[in-house]
Amino acid sequence: MIQMTLIQIDNYGPWTVTPRPRNESDLQILQAELYADLERQFANKKGLVFFTRFDNLLAVTNGIDEEDHLRIQRSIRNRYPITISMGVGAAETPHEAQKLATIALQKEGGAQSSKRKEILAIDSLAPADENNLVQAAHIDINSVTETLTDIESAFDTNFMVNKAQHYLMTKLIKKGALLFFIGGDNFMAPCNGLSEKEIEDILVEINDEIGIGLKAGIGVGRNMEDAAYMADLGLEEIRDHDNGMWTWVIEKEY
Amino acid sequence: MIQMTLIQIDNYGPWTVTPRPRNESDLQILQAELYADLERQFANKKGLVFFTRFDNLLAVTNGIDEEDHLRIQRSIRNRYPITISMGVGAAETPHEAQKLATIALQKEGGAQSSKRKEILAIDSLAPADENNLVQAAHIDINSVTETLTDIESAFDTNFMVNKAQHYLMTKLIKKGALLFFIGGDNFMAPCNGLSEKEIEDILVEINDEIGIGLKAGIGVGRNMEDAAYMADLGLEEIRDHDNGMWTWVIEKEY
Ligand SMILES: Nc1nc2c(ncn2[C@@H]2O[C@H](COP(=O)(O)OP(=O)(O)OP(=O)(O)O)[C@@H](O)[C@H]2O)c(=O)[nH]1
Ligand SMILES: Nc1nc2c(ncn2[C@@H]2O[C@H](COP(=O)(O)OP(=O)(O)OP(=O)(O)O)[C@@H](O)[C@H]2O)c(=O)[nH]1
Repeated sequence: MIQMTLIQIDNYGPWTVTPRPRNESDLQILQAELYADLERQFANKKGLVFFTRFDNLLAVTNGIDEEDHLRIQRSIRNRYPITISMGVGAAETPHEAQKLATIALQKEGGAQSSKRKEILAIDSLAPADENNLVQAAHIDINSVTETLTDIESAFDTNFMVNKAQHYLMTKLIKKGALLFFIGGDNFMAPCNGLSEKEIEDILVEINDEIGIGLKAGIGVGRNMEDAAYMADLGLEEIRDHDNGMWTWVIEKEY
Repeated sequence: MIQMTLIQIDNYGPWTVTPRPRNESDLQILQAELYADLERQFANKKGLVFFTRFDNLLAVTNGIDEEDHLRIQRSIRNRYPITISMGVGAAETPHEAQKLATIALQKEGGAQSSKRKEILAIDSLAPADENNLVQAAHIDINSVTETLTDIESAFDTNFMVNKAQHYLMTKLIKKGALLFFIGGDNFMAPCNGLSEKEIEDILVEINDEIGIGLKAGIGVGRNMEDAAYMADLGLEEIRDHDNGMWTWVIEKEY
């Protein structure tokens, strides 16, 4: 089972324009710092947060309990001009887990309700043990530096990366998996329940359809930190072999 | 003329896996904090940075000169484990400006060259005066809270926002404009040279093609801060009128 947390800034839309529109640069700084801050706190407990939409962030949080979530909420309230609410859900697939997390939070009120504030809505938690593993694929574009960054304009490269993201998302979501951009030419896909073959098929399809070559290190562990690290080692294996393989799976031994 | 700066972390790819893969959470924190930091420094001079790919960031920098860029580079070098190089270009369209900026930097060496370090490559600058205006559209999805955030799962909403982004990018790039996601359901499009009608046509097309309703406040000013603020006021006008209009242009008076 994978556990996911939805973190939502309370009533943020209206705040951004009250009493008049706030400078865009200040909103960007607030959002980026809030993200870095949440990342630090969840990572401390071996979770991983994705920036997602910045006002709505998704995290893989296996092993992180109610008290941990409450402490993070309080710490944000004490230091920011905004508060955050959270929903938590655990399920067999990442898509189902974030859906349960979202529904739990939505039941407590809308994102722009001035009455809903600092809610922690827990649908379900996945205990951190050998029965509750996280699987994640770290996907990157083959040789992005040579084929894009160093020869195309910065925006055109960005456009290609965004295109790869959109194709990956579209295909993964159908299989109950998620896909997050993590910078550069890199994506992280929480993907419990997907076989190595299913992931390879998606990469092959995208290469056929839009000519972007991808590879995926796939990691399995009891928490997101371990799964992501195993996935990184998988990517390194593919780079070391240098023979056109698409995927490499590593399960952490405890 | 619009002036754009490409900011690129020097030799970052190899650094992320040396001597072995660094924890993904640490990379996320580094990237988000670097972005917030650059935003603060460029915004101080009325520019605006977009996170783009995090290792490659694009900024609109009208009115920001060589010395300003050098000071920012030095300040990053003193406080981070990485250094940054930059390219700067000015042109009639944003796409052309970032292309000139990219080419200037690429001439000095690749993104993963261990020899290229802290380069400032200036192709051209646009003086901050009445002849050099920045035009930017702040685009957002109509009623995203009611139609998506409060009823769909967080990832499905994110997917729709990403879809809107991909369609917007595809259409704007053909007209020499750029498109950046700035969080929530919001996008910023530096778009010198585009008429209000051309922007409206793009929004209408996207509504027809994928059923996502968008609106755009369009701002014009001598620097990006002013243009973005005028664009925000334009969005507020559309909200106040509440009669299905697509765009509203405001030019700042000096
Ligand atoms: N978030 C994250 N980004 C990374 C990581 N490794 C590399 N990157 C990013 O990806 C960019 C490109 O680096 P690489 O993927 O190593 O370069 P490449 O040219 O595609 O080379 P190969 O991946 O070996 O094909 C870097 O500038 C980083 O932004 C990582 O572990 N996490
Ligand atoms: N970066 C940025 N994000 C904003 C701004 N205003 C709103 N947002 C984001 O957009 C999200 C949704 O807010 P709104 O766009 O006001 O909400 P809406 O439901 O779409 O309502 P309308 O835009 O009035 O149709 C918020 O949670 C913020 O993340 C802004 O000026 N800049």
